[in-house]
Amino acid sequence: MGMTMSQKILAKKAGLDTVAPGQLINADVDMVLGNDITTPVAIDEFEKYGFDSVYSKTGISIVLDHFVPNKDIKAAQLSKRCREFAGKYGIEHFFDVGRMGIEHALLPEQGIVAPGELIVGADSHTCTYGALGAFSTGFGSTDMAAAMATGKCWFKVPSAIRFNLTGKPGRWVSGKDVILHIIGMIGVDGALYKSMEFGGEGLGNLSMDDRLTIANMAIEAGAKNGIFEVDEVTLAYEKGRVNRPFDVYAPDPDAVYDAVYDIDLSAIRPTVSFPHLPENTRTIDEVGEVRIDQVVIGSCTNGRMSDLAAAAEILRGRRVAEGVRCIVIPGTQRIYKEAMEAGYLSDFIEAGCAVSTPTCGPCLGGYMGILAEGERCVATTNRNFVGRMGHVKSEVYLASPAVAAASAVAGKIAGPDSL
Amino acid sequence: MGMTMSQKILAKKAGLDTVAPGQLINADVDMVLGNDITTPVAIDEFEKYGFDSVYSKTGISIVLDHFVPNKDIKAAQLSKRCREFAGKYGIEHFFDVGRMGIEHALLPEQGIVAPGELIVGADSHTCTYGALGAFSTGFGSTDMAAAMATGKCWFKVPSAIRFNLTGKPGRWVSGKDVILHIIGMIGVDGALYKSMEFGGEGLGNLSMDDRLTIANMAIEAGAKNGIFEVDEVTLAYEKGRVNRPFDVYAPDPDAVYDAVYDIDLSAIRPTVSFPHLPENTRTIDEVGEVRIDQVVIGSCTNGRMSDLAAAAEILRGRRVAEGVRCIVIPGTQRIYKEAMEAGYLSDFIEAGCAVSTPTCGPCLGGYMGILAEGERCVATTNRNFVGRMGHVKSEVYLASPAVAAASAVAGKIAGPDSL
Repeated sequence: MGMTMSQKILAKKAGLDTVAPGQLINADVDMVLGNDITTPVAIDEFEKYGFDSVYSKTGISIVLDHFVPNKDIKAAQLSKRCREFAGKYGIEHFFDVGRMGIEHALLPEQGIVAPGELIVGADSHTCTYGALGAFSTGFGSTDMAAAMATGKCWFKVPSAIRFNLTGKPGRWVSGKDVILHIIGMIGVDGALYKSMEFGGEGLGNLSMDDRLTIANMAIEAGAKNGIFEVDEVTLAYEKGRVNRPFDVYAPDPDAVYDAVYDIDLSAIRPTVSFPHLPENTRTIDEVGEVRIDQVVIGSCTNGRMSDLAAAAEILRGRRVAEGVRCIVIPGTQRIYKEAMEAGYLSDFIEAGCAVSTPTCGPCLGGYMGILAEGERCVATTNRNFVGRMGHVKSEVYLASPAVAAASAVAGKIAGPDSL
Repeated sequence: MGMTMSQKILAKKAGLDTVAPGQLINADVDMVLGNDITTPVAIDEFEKYGFDSVYSKTGISIVLDHFVPNKDIKAAQLSKRCREFAGKYGIEHFFDVGRMGIEHALLPEQGIVAPGELIVGADSHTCTYGALGAFSTGFGSTDMAAAMATGKCWFKVPSAIRFNLTGKPGRWVSGKDVILHIIGMIGVDGALYKSMEFGGEGLGNLSMDDRLTIANMAIEAGAKNGIFEVDEVTLAYEKGRVNRPFDVYAPDPDAVYDAVYDIDLSAIRPTVSFPHLPENTRTIDEVGEVRIDQVVIGSCTNGRMSDLAAAAEILRGRRVAEGVRCIVIPGTQRIYKEAMEAGYLSDFIEAGCAVSTPTCGPCLGGYMGILAEGERCVATTNRNFVGRMGHVKSEVYLASPAVAAASAVAGKIAGPDSL
C-alpha cells in the first residue's frame, strides 16, 4: 500500500520500510520545541524522571515568546527556569528577549527546521512547519521531557486527507483565507488525528508565507499535522537558510486517503471566522455590519513579512477609525527590522497603530491587547473560542491581515476593496 | 515678602496678590490629568458625588499608558471605563492605544501643558511639567474627581529650596545624573512638601529633555513640585507647540528659600541609585562589579528623543551582552517614529534589544519586563523600591540612558567610557 508524505517521513524516522495508519511507532525526532509556558512544565518532568542529559544540544529549541518581555512575576520565574535549563545543558537554540520571535515564525526563518524532518513541539501550532514538507506536530510537556532526554517519541501513524489545489488566488486572498475556507468546509474536527496533505498544480501560486499560515491552522481542523509537497518555492525559501542535507518526500501515486478535496484557489473569497469557532466562516461578502473595537495583526499565524506588507499597503495614508485600537506585532526581530526598513512600521505608526515587540501575547489572552466585556476584535490569530482574548463576553473574528487592516480603517469588518 | 516661582503661579491662579508658605488656597487649574489606573477611581468618585458635567472639555487629559495595550481583563475594563467617560463628556485630550504615549512624555510634546500654568494629575510624576515653568503636581483620584467637575483644587502653599546651577555637564552626564546626584545629596525626604526651584547661569546648559527628567524626579526627593526658570531653551521648545498665550514667572529677588544649593554641573559624574532607594547614589566610578540580568531604557523619566539618541550612540555596532535582556520603550508614538527615522530603533534591534510600544509597564512592575527572584535590572526609570519591578528579591539600579545602554553591553553596571 502506498504511503502519504507524512507516513513516509514517520517510516523513515522509525527505521521502517513502511507504516500504516493506526500503527504505533517509536521514531527519532530532529527537533524538540518548547516555549516559556510549556518548557518549565517539561523541565519539572525531566527532573522528576531523573534525566541528567539531553539527547542533543542542537536538537532542542526553547523560545521565550508567550509572556515576554515578562508580563508578571510568574512569567519572569518561568523564563528564568527556561534560561537556567538552557544554560545548564548548553541548548544552542535558546531564544531570549531581544533575540527572539514567535516560535513558529522564528524556527523556519532561522533554518532550524527543514523539509523531511520530524519536529515535535510542546505547542499546538507546531504543525506550522509542515509548510516546508516536514512532519511537525504538537505534543504535551511530559512528552517534551522524554523527547529532550531521548530524542525519541511515540506516534500513532495518521491517515490523511488530500487537498488538491488548483487555480490562483485573487487579489487580497491569502493563505489565511484558504485555510479558513477549508475549516469552514470540513469543520473543526474535520481532520481529527489525520494528516492534511496539500499539493497539486495550484501549489506554486501559494507563497511560503501562505503555506506556513495554512499548515499553522491544520490543528484548528483537528489535524495531527498539515504538510505541503516540496516544490521550487520551498527550495528557494530554504536556499541560504538550511545548509544541511534534507530529504524531500512526495506521496506515493497509490497513497490512500480518507478523502480527497479539490480546492480551486481562484474561487476563494476573503473569509472571516465568526465567534466562537474557526469553522463559523463567512465570506467578506456575507459579513454584514459588525462594529469592532480592536484589531490585532500578528501571531504565529500571520506575523510574517508578507502579512505586514499586505496590512501596510492598506493602512498607508489611511487612519485607524476613531474608537478602534490596532495592534501590529511583527513575528520576529528580523521581521521587525525588515518591516521597519520597508517603511511598513512607519505606515502603521502614521495610521495610528501600536507596534509591539514580537510576542504571542494577545492571541491567547496573555497580554498586549486583552479584550473587555462586550468588545469585538478582528484578529489574524488562529482561535476565536469563548474568552480566548479576554473577557468571556468578548468576541474574536479571525481574518487575514488584509481584512484586519481594512476593518481597522472602516471601524467594522470590511474587505480591502470596500475602502 | 518676595515669592518663589511656584508661589507666584499659585497666587495668580487663586486670584490673590500674594501667598505665603503654609497658606491654604483654592486655585483654578489649567489641566487635570489622569491615566488608565487612576482615572477609573476618579470616575467612581465623580459619579458618587453626583457630578454630571466637567469644568472643561479641553482642560482634562486622560492618557491610557500604564497597562496598555491591555495586559489583562482588569486592565481592559479600566481602559473601557476611561474610554466611555471620555466619550460621554467629550474630553478632547483622550489618548488611546496607538494615538498615545506615556502621559508625562506626551503632554509637553503635544503642547497640552505650558509655562505658567497650574497642572494637577492623578499620578505622582505629574511634577514633570515644572520643566516648562509650570506649577505641576500629583494628587489623588478623589481630588481628580472634584477637579474634573469644578476646575479647582485646594493647595497648601509650599516653601521652597533653590538650586542655582552653574557650569556645563561633561560628556555622558545628563539630567538624570543631575537629579540622582541631588537626591543623593538631600535624600528622599530632602524636599518634603517643598518646591524644588531650578535656575542660574548653568541652566542654559541643560536641554529641555534634561529638565523634564529632573523635574520628573522632584517627587523622589519628596517635593510638592519641581520648577525651572523659563529661558530661551523653554521658549524655543514651546514655539510651534503652544500657540495660546502663556505667562512666565521669575522668582522675586527677595524670594525666601528654606535652603539654597549651588550645583556645579561640571562636577557631576554619571550617577547610579543602588537598591532600594533613589538616595542610595554612587558615581559610576564607585559602582564596583554588579552583574545584571536586564536593562530598561524608557519611562516618563527617560523615554524621550535625546534619551534614545544617547542609548543608540552606545548600542550602535555593539551587542547586548549574553544573558542580558535590553528593553527599549520610546515615550510616545511620535518619539517612536522619530527614533525609527533617525535609525535608533534599527540600532537597538541590531544590538539585540526588544523595542516596545510606548507604555509605563516595567517601571511600576506592571508588565513588559518584570523581574524574577534574584534578578538585577539597570533602569532609566524613577523608583527602585523593594519589588518595584517584580519579585521582592529583585533589584533595580536607576541610571541614565547612557549608563543603562553601556551596562547592557558590558553585562554589568558600566559607564560609556569603559566600553
